[in-house]
Amino acid sequence: MTEKLELLEEHRVFDGTQRKYQHHSETLHCAMTFSLFLPNVEKFPNPSLIWWLSGLTCTDDNFTHKAGAQKKAAELGLALIMPDTSPRGETVADDADWDLGQGAGFYVNATQQPWDANYQMYDYIVTELTAIVRETLGLTGSESIMGHSMGGHGALVIGLRNPDRFHAISAFSPIVNPSDVPWGIKAFDAYLGADKQAWASWDASKLLASHDGKPVPILLDQGTADNFLHVQLQPENLIAPEGYPLKIRMQDGYDHSYYFIASFIDEHLEFHQKHL
Amino acid sequence: MTEKLELLEEHRVFDGTQRKYQHHSETLHCAMTFSLFLPNVEKFPNPSLIWWLSGLTCTDDNFTHKAGAQKKAAELGLALIMPDTSPRGETVADDADWDLGQGAGFYVNATQQPWDANYQMYDYIVTELTAIVRETLGLTGSESIMGHSMGGHGALVIGLRNPDRFHAISAFSPIVNPSDVPWGIKAFDAYLGADKQAWASWDASKLLASHDGKPVPILLDQGTADNFLHVQLQPENLIAPEGYPLKIRMQDGYDHSYYFIASFIDEHLEFHQKHL
Repeated sequence: MTEKLELLEEHRVFDGTQRKYQHHSETLHCAMTFSLFLPNVEKFPNPSLIWWLSGLTCTDDNFTHKAGAQKKAAELGLALIMPDTSPRGETVADDADWDLGQGAGFYVNATQQPWDANYQMYDYIVTELTAIVRETLGLTGSESIMGHSMGGHGALVIGLRNPDRFHAISAFSPIVNPSDVPWGIKAFDAYLGADKQAWASWDASKLLASHDGKPVPILLDQGTADNFLHVQLQPENLIAPEGYPLKIRMQDGYDHSYYFIASFIDEHLEFHQKHL
Repeated sequence: MTEKLELLEEHRVFDGTQRKYQHHSETLHCAMTFSLFLPNVEKFPNPSLIWWLSGLTCTDDNFTHKAGAQKKAAELGLALIMPDTSPRGETVADDADWDLGQGAGFYVNATQQPWDANYQMYDYIVTELTAIVRETLGLTGSESIMGHSMGGHGALVIGLRNPDRFHAISAFSPIVNPSDVPWGIKAFDAYLGADKQAWASWDASKLLASHDGKPVPILLDQGTADNFLHVQLQPENLIAPEGYPLKIRMQDGYDHSYYFIASFIDEHLEFHQKHL
């Protein structure tokens, strides 16, 4: 592994360290940033690692700055990794709308021009960034995954496609059924093409309904005051095989914002810790 | 009171509510925003209120988004009010540098042109916004004040000048002695003029050294890895009369960022709660 990482920021926070890195991605063919929280390495020399995937328009900063996760992560001895949400830069295809292109990678491997040149976010996270985390950063602890909205979709898809690797999945306000809602249809049509057969392996509701591998416990929180609930999110479409450890909680009065995430992030970290 | 407030945002967070308001300020002659956290009003019908004053370049959003204060405030039943850091807008005087003009009001009443037309932040907070909070929003509980950097200076000055009103003061990385450090000299020279006699009543180190009213307990946290520590902040210059309840804590390895504030905000809220 000769991956060159540039450390952009380092801050002490609680009893741990918050870092931001930049590197050149061979998978995405552009410069990428990601953020990492490490608990106190003296107390937790090989911490478990939770992947956080953010939603539309976000970078690695949103969760890092706004979720308030570091306090509980420091206490439980959990590392947190926050990737960006798409390839970036002037040479990378983009769209005038905020729900397609840069900031909206949807954690898939695009097959359609012009997106296929850079939009390989699944491979970037599951392979390239994983190798950096393990080999360059030396983080080889057990792993789980979580995310918000588009990133909740990403966490469900990546977790369900890799059940032997991820020990738990949690999501805030996820897009559970992208094949059938406007955000997902627009993105999948652009990135994956018009043939809906190609969409099924990127749709959590379809992956979970047919899941026959090791069950990965899922916790899903959804606010009832979320403006996107009925059109884009529809958590009722996430239906698991009988006996599958899936818990969906409707949270009264919370919306789609980071205020909702902050309110329940400690419970999510405790859920992950229990399975890591 | 006929003050017209426009509610821009409202979010449920923990067991409380985060709001953002806009209004026309008669004192500053421009539109202003401020943010407000309210604990559960059923449990805490007349909460105590802590004022938070932010630092250079900030708006009312920085603390609201990044400090992670709402969890503990909800638990203790404390309201938090976050004003902006200066008058704003195209008709308001500004400077090309980030440490003077918009985003850098220094919580003083300017006497020099062109700043005196709008930069009356002390009066805005102590009188106009106070009246809005009490009469329009109905918040009449006991009060204390805290802040960061330039806002730490503001909290110390406003608290020490109004010892019968504010029950406690706390500060992260405050500018304790603006008369003698580059940020303060530049701002005071512009806003207050060259005569340093006029500066003393806006300098916490001078106000505290000569304080003879009711002592207001002060908690000050300063990170040792703060790049501004030795040139701009110099907490050792805050010297209280013998027996004054002043606690200065040097916090090892923390910097000037909101990661530092997040790490200790719960302890600050508990300190305030004890005196409210």
